[in-house]
Amino acid sequence: MRATLLYQAGDVRVEDVEDPKIQNPTDAVVRIILSCVCGSDLWPFKSQPYTDTPRQMGHEFLGVVQETGSEVKDVKPGAVVVVPFTYADNTCAYCRDGLHTSCVHGGPWGVGGVDGGQGQAARIPYADGTLVKLPVGEDSELLPDLLTLSDVLCTGYHAARTAGVQAGDSVTVIGDGAVGLSGVIAAKLLGAERIILMGRHTARTDLGRDFGATDVVAARGEEGVNAVRELTDGFGTPKVLECVGLKDALVQASGVVRHGGTISRVGAPQYPEAPFGFPEFMRNITLTGGVAPARAYMEELMPHILDGSIRPGRVFDRTVGLEDIAEGYRLMNDREALKTLVRL
Amino acid sequence: MRATLLYQAGDVRVEDVEDPKIQNPTDAVVRIILSCVCGSDLWPFKSQPYTDTPRQMGHEFLGVVQETGSEVKDVKPGAVVVVPFTYADNTCAYCRDGLHTSCVHGGPWGVGGVDGGQGQAARIPYADGTLVKLPVGEDSELLPDLLTLSDVLCTGYHAARTAGVQAGDSVTVIGDGAVGLSGVIAAKLLGAERIILMGRHTARTDLGRDFGATDVVAARGEEGVNAVRELTDGFGTPKVLECVGLKDALVQASGVVRHGGTISRVGAPQYPEAPFGFPEFMRNITLTGGVAPARAYMEELMPHILDGSIRPGRVFDRTVGLEDIAEGYRLMNDREALKTLVRL
Repeated sequence: MRATLLYQAGDVRVEDVEDPKIQNPTDAVVRIILSCVCGSDLWPFKSQPYTDTPRQMGHEFLGVVQETGSEVKDVKPGAVVVVPFTYADNTCAYCRDGLHTSCVHGGPWGVGGVDGGQGQAARIPYADGTLVKLPVGEDSELLPDLLTLSDVLCTGYHAARTAGVQAGDSVTVIGDGAVGLSGVIAAKLLGAERIILMGRHTARTDLGRDFGATDVVAARGEEGVNAVRELTDGFGTPKVLECVGLKDALVQASGVVRHGGTISRVGAPQYPEAPFGFPEFMRNITLTGGVAPARAYMEELMPHILDGSIRPGRVFDRTVGLEDIAEGYRLMNDREALKTLVRL
Repeated sequence: MRATLLYQAGDVRVEDVEDPKIQNPTDAVVRIILSCVCGSDLWPFKSQPYTDTPRQMGHEFLGVVQETGSEVKDVKPGAVVVVPFTYADNTCAYCRDGLHTSCVHGGPWGVGGVDGGQGQAARIPYADGTLVKLPVGEDSELLPDLLTLSDVLCTGYHAARTAGVQAGDSVTVIGDGAVGLSGVIAAKLLGAERIILMGRHTARTDLGRDFGATDVVAARGEEGVNAVRELTDGFGTPKVLECVGLKDALVQASGVVRHGGTISRVGAPQYPEAPFGFPEFMRNITLTGGVAPARAYMEELMPHILDGSIRPGRVFDRTVGLEDIAEGYRLMNDREALKTLVRL
């Protein structure tokens, strides 16, 4: 089959790799019909040194089950399924806690003999635990929306849930990337009354307004912090979703969070230590969030997509075929695309 | 009156200062009958450079109301009262949130023309908001226990509450100082089933066992982390109370907390940045806590003292008179005392 390999920073190639096949009785093989590029794919795309054993890229995908191992009971060949961005048995102590990213049998796509999601097919470990069936056909127009269950929508939702967003709440969302915009959708779903989106790209913040942002602050740093405080009687908001992962974004989050409030971070931290010491202690700020256990939220969020009440697939503003995925990476890396959809 | 002044590291003196008097109609003056030395008093005691305008020390005290301003309604002269370690109006937006340490009119004792608590008397700003009446006489044997409402018991309780400790929980408490031991009391009050106390001083951890610790781990660092993991099927505990404030203690907390768990820190952070980056993100660890809004918890905790179900005053293992308070500081600084009570 054809799959996406990253050889080094800026060097993404689509090449022939071995076809996936059932290796364990709990495996399935899925033919992939939609995939996409994640903001987190851009970190290695920006910085990875050359390797001659390149990793299969991609971890957000959906497709059709082709084959199942002898112990797979819940998913059958022919089922349309969406795949969370880590695989999981869905039965261990952590999965029962709703923390599928910590599954004792789980792991990430594209390493350790596991396929990536930016290819024609993938072997799915723990298929019954990992795969989520979609009640639509493979020609459904909702597929791009449903694909966001794989990662980006659930990541925004994880931010809002761990921040404790509830009806009537005021929330600041830092970052106008696809995760930030998903955070806006999530905050609105949970009933937030005021959603202040901090971002500088008008096309993105306009989409954020469509998704439910009530205010947009384009300024950053101290100026941005002051603008949010002015909007909130000087207090800031009790909940802040930090959807970037950079140190400056966390500092900004501390600046706009109300005393006693909660910052949830869902952008993978690009810092070894957090600027979260004595001042945050004196203000009783909580820092929560983390990598999103997408699998825990997929069934809960799916109905909102199926009934059309949310359209998270609008974050995909470019579509490429698999053979052109390198261009899809470039578009996102150069900020010409918000998020690239890959049709196989 | 006589009051405690810190001139520089190691140099605590009791000297004459001006008698407190009503300055604002919302003030009261309290004659202090019990005070104590706090672990946080030891930070300046260890490190403060010489000053010729020394600060009045002390922020944990109780006494008898002597005089009230014209707008004070709830407390009357003669009332026995306990004083939280910051003053607060108890009416502002933050106080209504239960975050009295962020009160817009509040502040700490001993600075800005406000008296400290290690002296014969103190002017109390916002007396109706700040003071909590005690239903006992000034000769009550419960006074040392009730004094702990001022800070140390509420600080331990804040750790347990913000960590979300609930019935049946497993909790690790890091630190066998008076705050850590109060954390044990608090975790037990909230119904924790397993309380692992990490501390090296046998006399203190023995008291911790009396307070409700089910296990004691004397080892620190990696060895200590491994010991806690062994006690918990390799998982660690979902709640960790970090009652020290040093970076190593926070690293230890990360080591013993279960994936998806919560660390609450109530020891004032002695680090500018927290070792709380990518690994904690991947494990979905929450960092919460902060300076304890004692005032928010005092009425809730008092009944447990009055009915004898908790005896937090057992953390006082030495008693001195005011004139000997320097010796009380020394005893604590040299770890000869757990916590020093001061009788006036």
